[in-house]
Amino acid sequence: MPDLLISSPANPRLKSLTALRRRRTREELGRTLVEGFEELSLALDAGVLPESVYYCPELMLDAPSQLAVVERARADGVETVQVSRVAFEKAAYREGPDGFLAVVPALVRRCADLEVGPRALTVLCEGVEKPGNLGAMLRTADAAGAEAVIAADPVTDWGNPNLVRSSKGTVFSVPVASDPTGEALRWLDEQGIALVATTPDTDLDYTDVDYTGPVAIAVGAEKYGLTEQVLRHAAYRVRIPMVGRANSLNVATSAAIVIYEAVRQRRRSSQHH
Amino acid sequence: MPDLLISSPANPRLKSLTALRRRRTREELGRTLVEGFEELSLALDAGVLPESVYYCPELMLDAPSQLAVVERARADGVETVQVSRVAFEKAAYREGPDGFLAVVPALVRRCADLEVGPRALTVLCEGVEKPGNLGAMLRTADAAGAEAVIAADPVTDWGNPNLVRSSKGTVFSVPVASDPTGEALRWLDEQGIALVATTPDTDLDYTDVDYTGPVAIAVGAEKYGLTEQVLRHAAYRVRIPMVGRANSLNVATSAAIVIYEAVRQRRRSSQHH
Repeated sequence: MPDLLISSPANPRLKSLTALRRRRTREELGRTLVEGFEELSLALDAGVLPESVYYCPELMLDAPSQLAVVERARADGVETVQVSRVAFEKAAYREGPDGFLAVVPALVRRCADLEVGPRALTVLCEGVEKPGNLGAMLRTADAAGAEAVIAADPVTDWGNPNLVRSSKGTVFSVPVASDPTGEALRWLDEQGIALVATTPDTDLDYTDVDYTGPVAIAVGAEKYGLTEQVLRHAAYRVRIPMVGRANSLNVATSAAIVIYEAVRQRRRSSQHH
Repeated sequence: MPDLLISSPANPRLKSLTALRRRRTREELGRTLVEGFEELSLALDAGVLPESVYYCPELMLDAPSQLAVVERARADGVETVQVSRVAFEKAAYREGPDGFLAVVPALVRRCADLEVGPRALTVLCEGVEKPGNLGAMLRTADAAGAEAVIAADPVTDWGNPNLVRSSKGTVFSVPVASDPTGEALRWLDEQGIALVATTPDTDLDYTDVDYTGPVAIAVGAEKYGLTEQVLRHAAYRVRIPMVGRANSLNVATSAAIVIYEAVRQRRRSSQHH
């Protein structure tokens, strides 16, 4: 039994959901949206307690098994709202929604809230614009076991629904933070984390740097790359060799290549100990 | 002076452009679209001869310098069509178009048309669905100097406008081909190219394989990965280590990580010779 049943697409509760697609509303209310079964499951696994879960059994791929997620939320005291198909499709921002939508507390961590180990692998994204690129980097950070992903001078907030979606929910499992670039650099220094900045303007190959200690891999905005402030602060400026005509890898691809070079070195180094 | 001037958004020539967004039309006419200054420049650099170039100076970021591309096409005998802003915005499929749109011959190469060197690095994408993922892989292949990217049992054609766009035009600079999986595997055998298949179902780390000889790195469809046909044919099945909760890297990210491991090994190996 849901706490509430919504059948009309004109229900004002649904308007309050679509309002959360706007960054200003998310910031004012301190809330954001999670859409999708997989994404919501990951958020719950990561300890996120939704405020409300909206669901539509008719849209679910496998309602008998997937409804367990709704039960699990309800058992944790979360409000559950069953929504008719026509109303759910109005509220969903995804094409072809899978019947799951939840309102969750916004991610508003600063660097000072992060806790990292003595040999932390972290990622610094400065001014990255596209939610899809940040989402892709979070998936890579999750897979690589990165201990934090920091948005410096962020253009997109971590609660952006397209970011949540493209991260496949890893925005809830990977510790994330936002801060002005200066604050982020100060925090890295305090933690003794060496900054490795990716840029085309250097001769140092990214494979010629030691990533086995505490390290932050920094990538910059899609068009302009990292700012001078970050480049000056870096222990190493590294480049990814490129031979092609277009000479620009996607920012999330660049991050993945360097992050996985760090993983490779760390695995080698742990095999030798 | 353009060959033609279009001011009305209702002009039938523009309808013939939007028709090319459909795969069937592209295949019937053997033509596809290139949108964007950077993409068109790359196509021209790669020797592509457009049938027509449509342009709108008002939409260009830097008309005085960018119009040189139109002049260059005109000098090569390409029809040039100047289009009013309102008409161009109707014809463009991109939000915020930059004033360049061209009709070019479709890319219909088969594996048999490819020419590769004795130590070729190639990429095989089997059944990859999203044009954006194929485009991202082409950018990586371009940067890495891959000699061919093969779509096996393709779901998306190389002329898909979203693919052309997300590839930043590298679909014209990297040799591409499409074939049924069986044909593609036969071609790799004939060329003496070893197949390295990425899959989660193996214990072999992708960094423990030698990529310095002729090699094809294979990735599969977003949801289901590579088929048994490809996995059985592979010289090596390799996995990318993942520690996170979501345990699935984006397919283009996975491809980039393995492709750049091959680049790393090849650079090391050439330094030692």
